[in-house]
Amino acid sequence: MRLDDTDDGFGHAHLPWGSCLLPGADAPALCTRVGDRVVDVAGAARAGLVPAWLAGPSVDVLLARRAADWGSARVAVHQLVVGDVPDRLVHDLADVVELLPFTVADYVDFYASEAHATNVGRLFRPDDDPLPAHWKHLPMGYHGRSGTVVVSSTDVVRPHGIRGADDVGPSERLDVELELGWVVGGPPTRLGRPVPIDAVEDHVLGVLLLDDWSARDLQAFEYRPLGPFLGKSFATSVAAWVTPMEALQDARVAPPAQRDPVPPDHLQGVADFGLDLDLELALSTPRMRAQGLHPHVVSRANAGRGLYWTIAQQLAHLTSNGATLRPGDLGGTGTISEVGEASAGSLLELSHDGSVPLELPTGERRTFLEDGDEAVLRGRSTDGSVTLAPVVGRVAPRA
Amino acid sequence: MRLDDTDDGFGHAHLPWGSCLLPGADAPALCTRVGDRVVDVAGAARAGLVPAWLAGPSVDVLLARRAADWGSARVAVHQLVVGDVPDRLVHDLADVVELLPFTVADYVDFYASEAHATNVGRLFRPDDDPLPAHWKHLPMGYHGRSGTVVVSSTDVVRPHGIRGADDVGPSERLDVELELGWVVGGPPTRLGRPVPIDAVEDHVLGVLLLDDWSARDLQAFEYRPLGPFLGKSFATSVAAWVTPMEALQDARVAPPAQRDPVPPDHLQGVADFGLDLDLELALSTPRMRAQGLHPHVVSRANAGRGLYWTIAQQLAHLTSNGATLRPGDLGGTGTISEVGEASAGSLLELSHDGSVPLELPTGERRTFLEDGDEAVLRGRSTDGSVTLAPVVGRVAPRA
Repeated sequence: MRLDDTDDGFGHAHLPWGSCLLPGADAPALCTRVGDRVVDVAGAARAGLVPAWLAGPSVDVLLARRAADWGSARVAVHQLVVGDVPDRLVHDLADVVELLPFTVADYVDFYASEAHATNVGRLFRPDDDPLPAHWKHLPMGYHGRSGTVVVSSTDVVRPHGIRGADDVGPSERLDVELELGWVVGGPPTRLGRPVPIDAVEDHVLGVLLLDDWSARDLQAFEYRPLGPFLGKSFATSVAAWVTPMEALQDARVAPPAQRDPVPPDHLQGVADFGLDLDLELALSTPRMRAQGLHPHVVSRANAGRGLYWTIAQQLAHLTSNGATLRPGDLGGTGTISEVGEASAGSLLELSHDGSVPLELPTGERRTFLEDGDEAVLRGRSTDGSVTLAPVVGRVAPRA
Repeated sequence: MRLDDTDDGFGHAHLPWGSCLLPGADAPALCTRVGDRVVDVAGAARAGLVPAWLAGPSVDVLLARRAADWGSARVAVHQLVVGDVPDRLVHDLADVVELLPFTVADYVDFYASEAHATNVGRLFRPDDDPLPAHWKHLPMGYHGRSGTVVVSSTDVVRPHGIRGADDVGPSERLDVELELGWVVGGPPTRLGRPVPIDAVEDHVLGVLLLDDWSARDLQAFEYRPLGPFLGKSFATSVAAWVTPMEALQDARVAPPAQRDPVPPDHLQGVADFGLDLDLELALSTPRMRAQGLHPHVVSRANAGRGLYWTIAQQLAHLTSNGATLRPGDLGGTGTISEVGEASAGSLLELSHDGSVPLELPTGERRTFLEDGDEAVLRGRSTDGSVTLAPVVGRVAPRA
């Protein structure tokens, strides 16, 4: 079968990695996709069409290898998909079950967008400077719960918890956070040996969209001084497909200028880069879906412009104290916002802390999410050549 | 071989679980110990002396099973060690390599000691109330880095990092935190389904001492508003042996009274308990070791009296928002301190934020740890029947 190149951002130059349960199969398979067709890479490996070590259930087999192998695997899969692919290795996307693409080791979420940090600071700490004094000295981050990272299309059960003194119940301020995730592979590093910033391509296989669901009421009550905990730990959704860093070569842009202050040496890379990716957040409600309406875009932001701290800086910071990396470590950039209206990656910001509802095409209004609402994250390179796989999550009430 | 009962707290009534590389073996084995003898439980399983499913490399095989199986395994291993144990299954503790006893899934650290939280609040936030206003409304916690949890006796490499604006270098305020860890087993729970507080014994296999190493200078600069990150993520040491909850039946005591405020319903257990364990922190320096001096005890605290929030409350809180548990999840109680001098679980507290050095038997003085210093955590039930395996960690300079 010939898999023609496509112009939907999933063409021959993209080749994202995923894990799918294929029709009739009883175990997951490492796959790639071209347009809306899924190619069984694990099956191709067993058939001797691509390297044998790709015969695995998920992206874990790539993450366990060195970066040089990611490149050779990509070349081999490219040769496969531009040729005549055996029919039995090709499936319609609609016929497969997309699974979590890799086993998450540690999950760290950063706070790397200046507009977002400023917006949140203004709302959560109105009496202080909106941007914490040390924010430009280091890429701030915290560890999240890796056990509750779920793949796109998994329902998100509304969290319950302590919303205030003597106030327990379902979160009434359930929010999304539009982020880029980055996926660590390669041999584990050694304790006490930081990863240099310019080694990022040896350690990051690729990126994917990430929705860091947040219960703002639980978060506001609990977060001082230990940071976000139950306000975030109930679910983090990631896309089903990891976009290789190699597929984003043309999307690289200069990182933001960092002059006041200049970051410390270990956060200055000679070849550091931002990613020129246009991202958007869309919402749909049950009524919208009943009327056949598509999700309504409520916000757009560009990752290159929105992120002050780059992925390489986040990685270098994470290991600068001597902490190790393991294959499967997942980083999140933090919510990506730009300055201006309708360009923030969370409802907290878009609704001005719940005070200005968003208008939807049905006439419905939303500050935070109601049961049945669906949030959709999308992204693509500004030249249109690469589309990031979406993240979709629907809010379900607790059973 | 007969393994006589011992009075060192590792007798027939304790039977902790661990993972060891035994002499001549090329793979780790699940083990228990009696006194200073290690018993090869995995080998006993292969020989048909205990259930076959115990033939594994680590405590992971227990964590994968339901709590009822933990009990039957304990009964079987007890029968083995009180009988005539085949010589080839018994090794001297000094001849084995103790490994990390289980694979850590998510690691969450709490902040459950009122005296500790009060002491730290006074030092870190002198202008506020020492205890955050919400501290008695919920057991505060945060996620730590599971990839840097190491077994006792692993050297701890001094972390480097950003100690302040334009101030990068090795931490000069390297500290320990004396904690109890609790180890989760049993089938994974379901998203959106909290674990009831009274189900703690279905989900917690046992406890072990835990040293949550902390770089106070990195922590102080970074921690607002996202909580501890690089100040903690460089290493967390745990003991090599997990003490089963069943071995601590006689150490149970009534939990602290919680009346102002009364906690929400889901944090009130009808059979909740504290653990009457006497803990201590000891230090040794290279000079002390050269003079043949034992580690010097600088602090003593009791877990039952020191912890306001119980392990069951920590577990229930962790899942109350709908977050899942997986086998291998590790909880830490947070530093255990009591009110009074020489009864705090960190040097930050003991040295009054570095202003009052501790005196050691050599005449040396310490506020925080110097390279070559060794911290030792020890614990035992107050009746002396059960000794917790120690945590030892020596500070090494970065290579």
